[in-house]
Amino acid sequence: MTITPPALSVFETTESEVRSYCRGWPAVFDRAQGSHITDEDGHTYLDFFAGAGSLNYGHNNPVLKRALIDYIERDGITHGLDMATSAKRAFLESFQNVILRPRDLPYKVMFPGPTGTNAVESALKLARKVKNRESVVSFTNAFHGMSLGSLAVTGNAFKRAGAGIPLVHGTPMPFDHYFDDKVPDFLWFERLLEDRGSGLNKPAAVIVETIQGEGGINVARPEWLRALSDLCHRHDMLLIVDDIQMGCGRTGPFFSFEEAGIVPDIVTVSKSISGYGLPMSLCLFRPELDVWEPGEHNGTFRGNNPAFVTAAAALNTYWADGQMEKQTLARGEQVEQALVGICSESAGGGAEFRGRGLVWGIEFHDKPRATAVCRRAFELGLLLETSGPESEVVKLLPALTVTPEELDEGLRTLDRAVRDTARVPAGV
Amino acid sequence: MTITPPALSVFETTESEVRSYCRGWPAVFDRAQGSHITDEDGHTYLDFFAGAGSLNYGHNNPVLKRALIDYIERDGITHGLDMATSAKRAFLESFQNVILRPRDLPYKVMFPGPTGTNAVESALKLARKVKNRESVVSFTNAFHGMSLGSLAVTGNAFKRAGAGIPLVHGTPMPFDHYFDDKVPDFLWFERLLEDRGSGLNKPAAVIVETIQGEGGINVARPEWLRALSDLCHRHDMLLIVDDIQMGCGRTGPFFSFEEAGIVPDIVTVSKSISGYGLPMSLCLFRPELDVWEPGEHNGTFRGNNPAFVTAAAALNTYWADGQMEKQTLARGEQVEQALVGICSESAGGGAEFRGRGLVWGIEFHDKPRATAVCRRAFELGLLLETSGPESEVVKLLPALTVTPEELDEGLRTLDRAVRDTARVPAGV
Amino acid sequence: MTITPPALSVFETTESEVRSYCRGWPAVFDRAQGSHITDEDGHTYLDFFAGAGSLNYGHNNPVLKRALIDYIERDGITHGLDMATSAKRAFLESFQNVILRPRDLPYKVMFPGPTGTNAVESALKLARKVKNRESVVSFTNAFHGMSLGSLAVTGNAFKRAGAGIPLVHGTPMPFDHYFDDKVPDFLWFERLLEDRGSGLNKPAAVIVETIQGEGGINVARPEWLRALSDLCHRHDMLLIVDDIQMGCGRTGPFFSFEEAGIVPDIVTVSKSISGYGLPMSLCLFRPELDVWEPGEHNGTFRGNNPAFVTAAAALNTYWADGQMEKQTLARGEQVEQALVGICSESAGGGAEFRGRGLVWGIEFHDKPRATAVCRRAFELGLLLETSGPESEVVKLLPALTVTPEELDEGLRTLDRAVRDTARVPAGV
Amino acid sequence: MTITPPALSVFETTESEVRSYCRGWPAVFDRAQGSHITDEDGHTYLDFFAGAGSLNYGHNNPVLKRALIDYIERDGITHGLDMATSAKRAFLESFQNVILRPRDLPYKVMFPGPTGTNAVESALKLARKVKNRESVVSFTNAFHGMSLGSLAVTGNAFKRAGAGIPLVHGTPMPFDHYFDDKVPDFLWFERLLEDRGSGLNKPAAVIVETIQGEGGINVARPEWLRALSDLCHRHDMLLIVDDIQMGCGRTGPFFSFEEAGIVPDIVTVSKSISGYGLPMSLCLFRPELDVWEPGEHNGTFRGNNPAFVTAAAALNTYWADGQMEKQTLARGEQVEQALVGICSESAGGGAEFRGRGLVWGIEFHDKPRATAVCRRAFELGLLLETSGPESEVVKLLPALTVTPEELDEGLRTLDRAVRDTARVPAGV
Repeated sequence: MTITPPALSVFETTESEVRSYCRGWPAVFDRAQGSHITDEDGHTYLDFFAGAGSLNYGHNNPVLKRALIDYIERDGITHGLDMATSAKRAFLESFQNVILRPRDLPYKVMFPGPTGTNAVESALKLARKVKNRESVVSFTNAFHGMSLGSLAVTGNAFKRAGAGIPLVHGTPMPFDHYFDDKVPDFLWFERLLEDRGSGLNKPAAVIVETIQGEGGINVARPEWLRALSDLCHRHDMLLIVDDIQMGCGRTGPFFSFEEAGIVPDIVTVSKSISGYGLPMSLCLFRPELDVWEPGEHNGTFRGNNPAFVTAAAALNTYWADGQMEKQTLARGEQVEQALVGICSESAGGGAEFRGRGLVWGIEFHDKPRATAVCRRAFELGLLLETSGPESEVVKLLPALTVTPEELDEGLRTLDRAVRDTARVPAGV
Repeated sequence: MTITPPALSVFETTESEVRSYCRGWPAVFDRAQGSHITDEDGHTYLDFFAGAGSLNYGHNNPVLKRALIDYIERDGITHGLDMATSAKRAFLESFQNVILRPRDLPYKVMFPGPTGTNAVESALKLARKVKNRESVVSFTNAFHGMSLGSLAVTGNAFKRAGAGIPLVHGTPMPFDHYFDDKVPDFLWFERLLEDRGSGLNKPAAVIVETIQGEGGINVARPEWLRALSDLCHRHDMLLIVDDIQMGCGRTGPFFSFEEAGIVPDIVTVSKSISGYGLPMSLCLFRPELDVWEPGEHNGTFRGNNPAFVTAAAALNTYWADGQMEKQTLARGEQVEQALVGICSESAGGGAEFRGRGLVWGIEFHDKPRATAVCRRAFELGLLLETSGPESEVVKLLPALTVTPEELDEGLRTLDRAVRDTARVPAGV
Repeated sequence: MTITPPALSVFETTESEVRSYCRGWPAVFDRAQGSHITDEDGHTYLDFFAGAGSLNYGHNNPVLKRALIDYIERDGITHGLDMATSAKRAFLESFQNVILRPRDLPYKVMFPGPTGTNAVESALKLARKVKNRESVVSFTNAFHGMSLGSLAVTGNAFKRAGAGIPLVHGTPMPFDHYFDDKVPDFLWFERLLEDRGSGLNKPAAVIVETIQGEGGINVARPEWLRALSDLCHRHDMLLIVDDIQMGCGRTGPFFSFEEAGIVPDIVTVSKSISGYGLPMSLCLFRPELDVWEPGEHNGTFRGNNPAFVTAAAALNTYWADGQMEKQTLARGEQVEQALVGICSESAGGGAEFRGRGLVWGIEFHDKPRATAVCRRAFELGLLLETSGPESEVVKLLPALTVTPEELDEGLRTLDRAVRDTARVPAGV
Repeated sequence: MTITPPALSVFETTESEVRSYCRGWPAVFDRAQGSHITDEDGHTYLDFFAGAGSLNYGHNNPVLKRALIDYIERDGITHGLDMATSAKRAFLESFQNVILRPRDLPYKVMFPGPTGTNAVESALKLARKVKNRESVVSFTNAFHGMSLGSLAVTGNAFKRAGAGIPLVHGTPMPFDHYFDDKVPDFLWFERLLEDRGSGLNKPAAVIVETIQGEGGINVARPEWLRALSDLCHRHDMLLIVDDIQMGCGRTGPFFSFEEAGIVPDIVTVSKSISGYGLPMSLCLFRPELDVWEPGEHNGTFRGNNPAFVTAAAALNTYWADGQMEKQTLARGEQVEQALVGICSESAGGGAEFRGRGLVWGIEFHDKPRATAVCRRAFELGLLLETSGPESEVVKLLPALTVTPEELDEGLRTLDRAVRDTARVPAGV
């Protein structure tokens, strides 16, 4: 496939230098369907990025599309603030019936604004209000968002520097596997909590991702999550699971923490919750934590009703039974098998992989190679992104609706991109 | 009209106590068109709230609706992160051609995430990064958003208390008219800046609304804004105009600061920019301030492409000539005339009004009456909200596309609501 | 008098660049008595600086010296932490009998460490603990100390920059006369407190100096202080008077706030409290504020017992009757009369003076002239320092024990220094 | 010895509840000499506390006393701000000749105010100014002082709570032996520094005590200190050694870090530097760090000249040769031998000891017993204090001038106090 340099002029002249994805994928995209996305020149790419996990049901999923167009056609409420609407009721009822009740989860539902960082900000506010403490513990390589509250519990030094003020009230702790399992889990954290002379400000809450997406596809073991949950309970700290990227079925079950059998005090959900890539987020919490005053947190777009419509359709279509979870785990096995070969053979042992469900990462020992692999994959018609503190991990986030054939095709392209980026050994 | 109590059960059992608008308007809304919104029981209300200023072109505006459905039908990109897309290009070109160029505004355009507070957070980050200072000056009764960065420059004590941490790095200054013009403008502010012993941390920027919507429809005079702009220039501070509620034509011209003839360094735009009530926001700034590194600020939903489609359609439909501005100013005169009578006669002199274009506020001396007026208006089929630090101001934000007849009807309903809430004087 | 450049070598090679007074007074001082200080070359200077107000009873006051030597000779406790000691008891009893009881002041006495900034830090901690709020209001051109808590409520931008972190939790308000009395007192402050939308974090306390020494000898009127006290009471904020420089009789009465007839909630005392220039400070507060836990604030040198000995001797010698206050006021009149002539004639109208008791300042319109006057005074054998944000004020702080003759001599030298620094008008 | 309850009335009625040592030692002390202190009733106590390490040369050391009285008799300058004085020159020259030069230490000397916390505040300010970063790393159970800057790097939760504001900009790391040597030194710290995604704000400096006195006599190994010094160097952080309690010969050599062979970037010295218990402190730093502007940090009592006089006398008397160091180490061996028996036999194995030179701690497994031992020791005529986060450590800090006989007597009394506080086992 030959790539003609696209006409990027208005982007270059007018859009801020802050733009980033468009630099790695120099195309002007126009249409998309399922796992495929097409640019203005008619080139079609297989998408293993899925809107950074916002398109778990594929681009422009036809079932959701139908519901969405019907809603717009009939002049359903578009912008609803936090007014009661038919669309919101339908979503809340579906969420209760399909998600919460079958899992015995007692959560109240807050619409904190339509983005992930809105949800994280509201979760942190609530935890601090409930516990009357300022400090929050996060983990190494965590990513929780770009507004100041969320950024303070995010690990990446480059993103943090953008704050322009010292980020305080957060303390990082080692995520699972941070010391290659040579140090007992939570040794440091628990010691700090128990020692009245440790200097740690007692935290209101702990915020954690079960798998760190931006941090490099770092997978926490279920037993580590359970131990964390116990630790929080014993030390009177709220446990916040940020399930923005790993929730909505990405790891198999609807919530990524289900496998560990824990029930967090607060859960943030966004990205794929609308199902169609429309901005929407939720903050869920135990009913006894619902100490908000009316309007104490608000936001103009917290009632994005078209998103409620597609969200309800997605829940009813994909989560009424256990099919989706089973399928995701099966697809995951397909990926895992391919990665074994890619890492050992194609990468010549210079890479390791990890993941669960349909989220996988390949960490290259030669760190810059990860970026080279993504660049080569793009030339070969596959969208892939890196993650990790030094962009050393190639991240696989195909749509959950990907077919086995598409998956196979993409993995073969990936394999080729890995092989094509092998450095010729010096002296040959 | 009789209001039957609607079935709110799932809202009451499942939605967080933080919900607020639904408490004042106990109905389940279902459909909407232009200036009208209809509940499930078939009651139709005239909407003088317009999504808190997010629906300047009315609910489900047919021109934008057509463009939106066409785009969805043809599987245009929905979720685009910050990839280059046809829809984004079309928006950027329209924004350049219709808005920026005719006004000689040199701004770069940043997509900081789809909500107003995303835009404010990015504006504050950028200002601090450029100036290498932490402090920002805001104004009494300012409202800029609910995430921690924005909340720190917001005035409302109730909202601030929700932060759960001390909000620092911001200093309030008196907004225009704060002392009933008995004190020279900026006397205090400028003195603090000039006095090396004042104790004011030198600000990176000043953030201001030209008319404070949430703060009580407080209108800054053009000469006050010009003096502020001069002050910023003289003291090397960036001027940020938060035009989220007052921009997109609300006051007449596209940007609310045009009347004053100033060119802010940074401008935030959201609410009505998509035209259809879809989440979208912009952060605009002088090109020399574009010191962002790629990806230094990001956000999952910063590429909400359906919003770009309706945004471009709105710009091309309504802003290609000066018609919209003229019409808004004419409608404003219609409102103003009605308010003269409402305040002097129906309110018996117990109220004052202020505003510009199609944003007006009636401040009641008997503060709780404002809430009573809104409640009575709802019973009479008119949606109105209060604002101000003690909810003492009835706020009028009709769609800019409201017809003279609708405006007249709403104003008559308002008049009746004011009369109906008169207290019987004691002893009569 | 001719000044031979002294041998400063070890100071220049070994002492940090942070040293300052030694730069303006290039001499190596050796001995001192009363109002005179003598350098190694035998030059004697009249001291109108008095250790920045720490030597109100003159250098090495013979009565205190006798008590001090007796105490050391008999091996009285020198370093006592906060153990009960005979010397501490004697001080506490004298302070009760001579100072607190006659003035009907109900204060508990805390020994927070021997420096002024220790006292201010403990006052701020206590106020925040009692009120459970972080914010404290200070005034333009305030000076309260160099440790981080005190520095955050200090106005001087140069000193603040030394903190190396953003100084937060403090908000400056205009000191008396800040707007030349064109703006009603406390208009801005009270408005911010009353307006729930003002953005001011509700303060735990207000900290104020009755006369700002470092800030430029800015004198608050008694009625301004009373209004401030009322404001604090009405708005549930604690009033802290920092009487470190102006207390111990500097303005006439023992406490500088006595003239205003107010009773602050918390008072800090240091500088001249030991009487002999030895490090000592007190934090006084209403008994109902004494919510400290034992040891919650501490410090190694809070029991500097030799200072307690000289402090008790000073109280018993000088404050058992009203003589000292009367004498100080009389000396103040002597200063005032001289300053009238110095400002109008010798300075040719280019200066203004202000003060009370034995603290006076001359502000020069030609700001650098203040420094020139001090330099010239030094050559003429008189020690004088500047203050004010731009060092534009010559500060007079003679010992309270200065004789009328010494005062006259010093004022004549000052007059000559002022005349000697007149610039020859251009073109003459 | 029978203890008559002393007349504490004025302390109880007038002194703040914050007082603490006087509660454990209910006596009114009057005189002191060497290692003995006598109360008003004539009871004499052997002092193994030595003013919390401020009286390394004993109470009212006769050599220093002579120098002090001579100075006062001849009207030497008492209060000198930062003027050059004969006394300051003599001190600086002695410090150069006796301490710095023989150890090849290149430090500049700053007089930051007379207390330890003044020195720590200035050290932190300087480090932040030099590195232009806010964050500072401290260690678990560190103690650095009570003003806000120092308190933020202090570990004790009870002391921290007194701040009344969230203490930020500090991060604790594990001190030596914190995990009983099961975890490699600096594993966590170095990983955080190397990982760009760790979330640790890059520190300007690390502040450490070589032996934590208040924290429970926690002794850092020389190799740990060397590794810390290397770590700081590799990661461009300044190393601050807070030698306030452990310096001035307490551990043997003049500076406690000498044994490790490191040269910190900044050193704080106080407590015993004046030798006589008079308030004095120093901040020492490499000359290239001396970026202070004149007067950028100041303080009224930074020129406590009587303290300079006794300080110079102490240096010249005790540190002109290596005698003092040898003697301290010999005395330390005497203590160590006694503690072996006390812990194993008298405490029945229920205690462990640690220390170096003349600073030792006995940690009791039955934590409250440490307080009981001190109480009993007081009854037996010996002053001892506890330390550690739960006051579980009995701390031995005898004067360095203690005689072998006094040491023996005190250790025998301690032994008896330990035996007297044994609990009768249940069921006996």
